[in-house]
Amino acid sequence: MAAIPAPVPAVDAATGVLTGATAHYRKTLRDLEGVFSDDQAFARRLAAAPGEVVYDVYEVQRSQAPGDLIFGTSILEPGVVGSEFHMTRGHLHALVDRVETYYCLRGTGVLLLESVPGGIETIELRPGVVAYVPPARIHRSVNTGNERLITLFCYPADAGHDYEIVHAANGMRSLVVRAPGGGWALVDNPRYRQRDA
Amino acid sequence: MAAIPAPVPAVDAATGVLTGATAHYRKTLRDLEGVFSDDQAFARRLAAAPGEVVYDVYEVQRSQAPGDLIFGTSILEPGVVGSEFHMTRGHLHALVDRVETYYCLRGTGVLLLESVPGGIETIELRPGVVAYVPPARIHRSVNTGNERLITLFCYPADAGHDYEIVHAANGMRSLVVRAPGGGWALVDNPRYRQRDA
Repeated sequence: MAAIPAPVPAVDAATGVLTGATAHYRKTLRDLEGVFSDDQAFARRLAAAPGEVVYDVYEVQRSQAPGDLIFGTSILEPGVVGSEFHMTRGHLHALVDRVETYYCLRGTGVLLLESVPGGIETIELRPGVVAYVPPARIHRSVNTGNERLITLFCYPADAGHDYEIVHAANGMRSLVVRAPGGGWALVDNPRYRQRDA
Repeated sequence: MAAIPAPVPAVDAATGVLTGATAHYRKTLRDLEGVFSDDQAFARRLAAAPGEVVYDVYEVQRSQAPGDLIFGTSILEPGVVGSEFHMTRGHLHALVDRVETYYCLRGTGVLLLESVPGGIETIELRPGVVAYVPPARIHRSVNTGNERLITLFCYPADAGHDYEIVHAANGMRSLVVRAPGGGWALVDNPRYRQRDA
């Protein structure tokens, strides 16, 4: 008989921190230059607090083998840049048929999905929701609430990440913004550069 | 713009029921004949309440494609058969390198893992733990507590299930039983038939 080596990964429900993670990365405002649409609003936020954390990711990866899985937590702080809600950079899996699941542990938000020809879909996140990212979807998490958005994600270990496809198009086709009456709305991204299908 | 077709899958935290599931199966006592070690204790439980639920599984599967994922909830009722705690049948993935994750939502238990040469490992489950089943491990969930054990699982959609490997060996090498002083203990399965390595 043998125990799995400690520490067994565990999520702190309040903070989203994953103990036992094999990797952790953090994105502050200064890491996200060019990601938000409103350059002036971004410059103001950056000047005030360049090291302010926008999101943290903790993950466990054992291998890159097909059939293995990577899992972890994403912790997205609440806030806006202009009218646009805090969000992750967004990516497509390098192996485009690799899907992903996001289980929402805390907070409220939107998972924004874009197919490479440009179709936009949204999945509203609230605690208990399991959002499924189908094959070939660029995806990003957006925190539309007033508290941290914490999700537990899982995806195939051989998926890989393509961030450049988002960067090269100046983002995704739509922005998730604070709606005038409260809540969120999708608006066209004015800087969007059509991708080659 | 288009929304993902409703209903978006969501877990009821109290019951573990997954709305939006594409499949649900239930195992009652009568479905589990031969799974527990103590035949006389099993016969008594069966005579008293043959339709008593031992566990429910809800899952979402979109395809069997490599790179796709199946996710869902496992809801294991508390109880014992003799001294052995309620548990799932246990299986090996037909594609043996496919791993699995179990996020514990509620309750306490043990994930019992057995490599095909016969090595036993255990992972204690409590809310927040993410248990990882490495490649080539027979695995089963065991409820060692007094309330439902609810987990959210995720595994590759092409994994498949081999239940026969457990059945043919009269179970797994070890039993998870109520310890004399409370809590749980591993004991040898007296009926275990060594697998061919």
